[in-house]
Amino acid sequence: MRRLFPAVTAAAEVYLDSASTTQKPAPVIAAVEGYLRERTANAGRGTYPWATTLTGAIEHVRAQVAAHLRAAPEEIVFTPGATAGLNAVALSWGLANLEDGDEILYSPRDHASNVYPWLHLRDMLARFGRRIRLIPYRVTELGEADTVDIAARLSPRTRLITVSHLHHVFGALNTLEELRGRLDPRILLCFDCSQSGGHLPIDVTELRADFAVLSAHKMFGAPGTGILHCSRRVHEQLVPFLPGGNSGVAPTDSNLEYARMPERLEGGTHNIPGILAIGAALNVLDEIGVDVIAEHNRVLTRRLIEGLRPLPGLEFTPGPAYAPCEIGYGTVSFTLAGIGSTDLGFVLAEAGFLVRTGAHCVPPADGRADADSVRVSTHIYTTADDIDRFVDTLAAIAREVGP
Amino acid sequence: MRRLFPAVTAAAEVYLDSASTTQKPAPVIAAVEGYLRERTANAGRGTYPWATTLTGAIEHVRAQVAAHLRAAPEEIVFTPGATAGLNAVALSWGLANLEDGDEILYSPRDHASNVYPWLHLRDMLARFGRRIRLIPYRVTELGEADTVDIAARLSPRTRLITVSHLHHVFGALNTLEELRGRLDPRILLCFDCSQSGGHLPIDVTELRADFAVLSAHKMFGAPGTGILHCSRRVHEQLVPFLPGGNSGVAPTDSNLEYARMPERLEGGTHNIPGILAIGAALNVLDEIGVDVIAEHNRVLTRRLIEGLRPLPGLEFTPGPAYAPCEIGYGTVSFTLAGIGSTDLGFVLAEAGFLVRTGAHCVPPADGRADADSVRVSTHIYTTADDIDRFVDTLAAIAREVGP
Repeated sequence: MRRLFPAVTAAAEVYLDSASTTQKPAPVIAAVEGYLRERTANAGRGTYPWATTLTGAIEHVRAQVAAHLRAAPEEIVFTPGATAGLNAVALSWGLANLEDGDEILYSPRDHASNVYPWLHLRDMLARFGRRIRLIPYRVTELGEADTVDIAARLSPRTRLITVSHLHHVFGALNTLEELRGRLDPRILLCFDCSQSGGHLPIDVTELRADFAVLSAHKMFGAPGTGILHCSRRVHEQLVPFLPGGNSGVAPTDSNLEYARMPERLEGGTHNIPGILAIGAALNVLDEIGVDVIAEHNRVLTRRLIEGLRPLPGLEFTPGPAYAPCEIGYGTVSFTLAGIGSTDLGFVLAEAGFLVRTGAHCVPPADGRADADSVRVSTHIYTTADDIDRFVDTLAAIAREVGP
Repeated sequence: MRRLFPAVTAAAEVYLDSASTTQKPAPVIAAVEGYLRERTANAGRGTYPWATTLTGAIEHVRAQVAAHLRAAPEEIVFTPGATAGLNAVALSWGLANLEDGDEILYSPRDHASNVYPWLHLRDMLARFGRRIRLIPYRVTELGEADTVDIAARLSPRTRLITVSHLHHVFGALNTLEELRGRLDPRILLCFDCSQSGGHLPIDVTELRADFAVLSAHKMFGAPGTGILHCSRRVHEQLVPFLPGGNSGVAPTDSNLEYARMPERLEGGTHNIPGILAIGAALNVLDEIGVDVIAEHNRVLTRRLIEGLRPLPGLEFTPGPAYAPCEIGYGTVSFTLAGIGSTDLGFVLAEAGFLVRTGAHCVPPADGRADADSVRVSTHIYTTADDIDRFVDTLAAIAREVGP
């Protein structure tokens, strides 16, 4: 399996930052390189075979993505990335549909890309005299969105609940399962699946996701590409996103006429190699099996948690470390007494372990425990031996910096 | 020179669609592949060497771009592409700054990506009761923005003039030189340099460009990346574009605080391989010399025009074919009596010549001559022999379909 990933096999270091970006399997590299090296053309435009083959290939990948998420192809939009995808929801849905007094429920402890688009939307609407409210909800000790708190904050003005499917620091899963059956169907659900893509099976139908956002480079693909699932239920509410060539709009005397989905949200030249990379990545994921990856990450996560738990001065952030059962999704974050996380990251990098440190793109807020931590994240190419060596190294550091 | 471009040397066909996308030189392919194959990491986040090296590399490319355009690094924003760049101007400047009655001058015969963002902006503002006006200006027989017409349409409410630096169908250059000295400095200028990037030297200082937009994949780079130049003069007018992680914003009690440029317009993970590809592309451009490319394209353009001119039934769209002097920028468009452009494109593809046909992403409007044409576009890897063979082939077709 590891041989599929040239950067992993070539490295002396142990890469434990897969939640930032995953290593790339050889078929993904080949897909990108193949596009750049042979019969390079634009797609959706030219009528010659170099171009039409690419147009067909993009639609093939769209169908692959749809099948992967249990959606329909017209529900799948290719975006420049997950951040752009969440901003597309804010701009193509929020800016066009929200009224004075409407409310969005969100977690201030989510990744900035699931916080700033909503804050920015609120600010933009306020310029035009529309006051929407952003209602923060809490997370539990397990790092999960607190569905009791969400339920308590629902109001007749709630229009959207946005949530991380898998939290990028806490490594906790959110499905809103307890809540979904009781929700007014007019309340839209937005799942940021940046961390769950390629890690867990994602079924947008089961999630009742109106919007679901994925990041290609976090699921074996290349940076600069993402996926936005927009349920058919909301299509008529959507206005164009970054319109341009091939975005299926047409000017009329007084308005832009909006064409069908998904073109409405896809202006300009596609990131062709990025989309081809998604296709190759999905093939690799299917071949390995996302359930196999999920189980591999679960086992590694538990091994890591149990290895770290006895270390003096080590404190886990919210997450599966506090769970009563053996869950785990490939991400564990913690602090170590006596050494700041940034310094700890430098020491670990010196020892050959590449981890993420700091605030992890969580918007700043004073006095928050998770504002600074070390995050370890695994994937299919991570081995039990990697984890054991990491734990041994951290144990040695803990002994050194401890009281 | 041609050996730098593996897809060109490997092909039996003659690629004459460089205005759609350019072929990729080997160093660009190597830059992308190198990122995906070795020490793959995210940038701007991790503190370990794999990540910090990339962070430095991105800033190095930013400085390269700035030098290439005669701008300052903080004026250079990396975008997902030229379409996103023009939409960024509409969203980060237009949506935040335009008032009731303000006017934007634009050409309806420009590429959709320089038309739809403004139409969409107008529609979005109208939802909030702000009525801006889009004032169309004419193009001349040479395919140039008619500066006399633009001057006549200026008003105290003019806020922005947007123009294609090099037109994607007409192949005509627009610098607004005749106009610039006379313009109220409060009127902003936006240049779509998608076609001029990598074809002509671009000096944003000389152009007095407040905004300039480039497409990486049209200048030897990869799709999914673009450049947006925002002059320092306008920085204080800009609100965030697609904010997320690392976009340098910070939430306050009531507002998002906007951080410095260019981070303000760059949320989320960069298209790292795309940006590295821009760096490699600029190295190739510098090595060849953009002025050498410009002269090569000029010579080929004149050769093509003079070869096509005698053909019966051939009619040029507006462009350098009508110019009194020997100008040319690598793009020539025309129609041929007796055969529709799409069919002509198929015949040419059968004969091994890959050209673009149709409306070329110009928004539809009835009775317009340029709504359907064949476009031939060249670059440094195009040879005089390619042009001569193309002319011979077209001459044979013209004889066959002619009266």
